[in-house]
Amino acid sequence: MVTTVVDARPVADGLAAASVADRLAACAQVGGQVDSTYRWRGEVETATEWSVQFKTVPDRVSELVDRIRADHPYDVPEILVSRVECDPAYAAWVRENTHV
Amino acid sequence: MVTTVVDARPVADGLAAASVADRLAACAQVGGQVDSTYRWRGEVETATEWSVQFKTVPDRVSELVDRIRADHPYDVPEILVSRVECDPAYAAWVRENTHV
Amino acid sequence: MVTTVVDARPVADGLAAASVADRLAACAQVGGQVDSTYRWRGEVETATEWSVQFKTVPDRVSELVDRIRADHPYDVPEILVSRVECDPAYAAWVRENTHV
Repeated sequence: MVTTVVDARPVADGLAAASVADRLAACAQVGGQVDSTYRWRGEVETATEWSVQFKTVPDRVSELVDRIRADHPYDVPEILVSRVECDPAYAAWVRENTHV
Repeated sequence: MVTTVVDARPVADGLAAASVADRLAACAQVGGQVDSTYRWRGEVETATEWSVQFKTVPDRVSELVDRIRADHPYDVPEILVSRVECDPAYAAWVRENTHV
Repeated sequence: MVTTVVDARPVADGLAAASVADRLAACAQVGGQVDSTYRWRGEVETATEWSVQFKTVPDRVSELVDRIRADHPYDVPEILVSRVECDPAYAAWVRENTHV
C-alpha cells in the first residue's frame, strides 16, 4: 500500500486516475480532507490536504512511487509504503490489474 | 488491524457493529466517504465507498476476515491486514473485548 | 507512523500542534470524523471521534507515544505504531524536524 497527501483535490484525483490507468495501482482511494500541521523552513504551518491511498503489488511499488513523485507538486512529497496482507483472490485481482 | 471498504454506508455500519457485538474486534471505525478509482473487467471505474477499520488481536484475525468476507457484498472485497504495535494496557483491552 | 483517535476535535488539533511544536513529530494530520463502535465495561457503545496521524523517526516514537498518552483524555487511549518506508529525502526532512 502506498499513500501520499497533496494540498489540491484535483491533483489528488489526477494521481489516483493516472496510477490506475497506467496499471501502476489496481485501485486508488482519495479520502476526505485532512488538516495538516508541519514545520517548513523552521516555521510551524498548517495546510488542508487530501490523502490518496494506492493498492499495488510489491514489484510495481518503485515505479508507482517514482510516478507519484514526478507528478506531485511538492519538492519533498510524503510518499509512504507499508506492507499489508490480503487473501489470494484479492491479491490476484491486484496483480491482474497492475500487469498487462 | 484489519481494514475494508464498501460502497454503502449502512453496510459499513453493519460490518462494524457485528464485529464488535460478536467479539471479533474490540472496536471498529467507519471513516468518511472515499472516492475510489479501480479497474473492473478491463474498464477503469469510480465509486464512492466507506472505509471500516477493525482493531483485534492476532488470534482473531482470520475469523474476523472470514466474517467480513461472508457479510461483504463484493465478489472480491478488499480486506487488508496490517500489524501495528500498541502499549500493554491497550493490548489488554483489545484482548479482553475479543474473548469471552 | 503513530496514530490515535479522540472524541473532541479541539483535543485532536491540540495533540497535532503540540507534537510538531515540540519536535516529537515532523507533521501531524487530523482526519475527518470517524464513527466508532466499541465495547466499554461490557456494553457496546458508539462515539464520534477524530483520527490524528503523526509522522516521526523511530528514535522519537516512544517520547511521542508518552506525550500523546499524557495529553489524551481517555484512560486507555488507542495509540498505534506502524512502520512505513519512505524515500531518503522525506526521511531526512522528518529527521531534521524532529531534532534540534
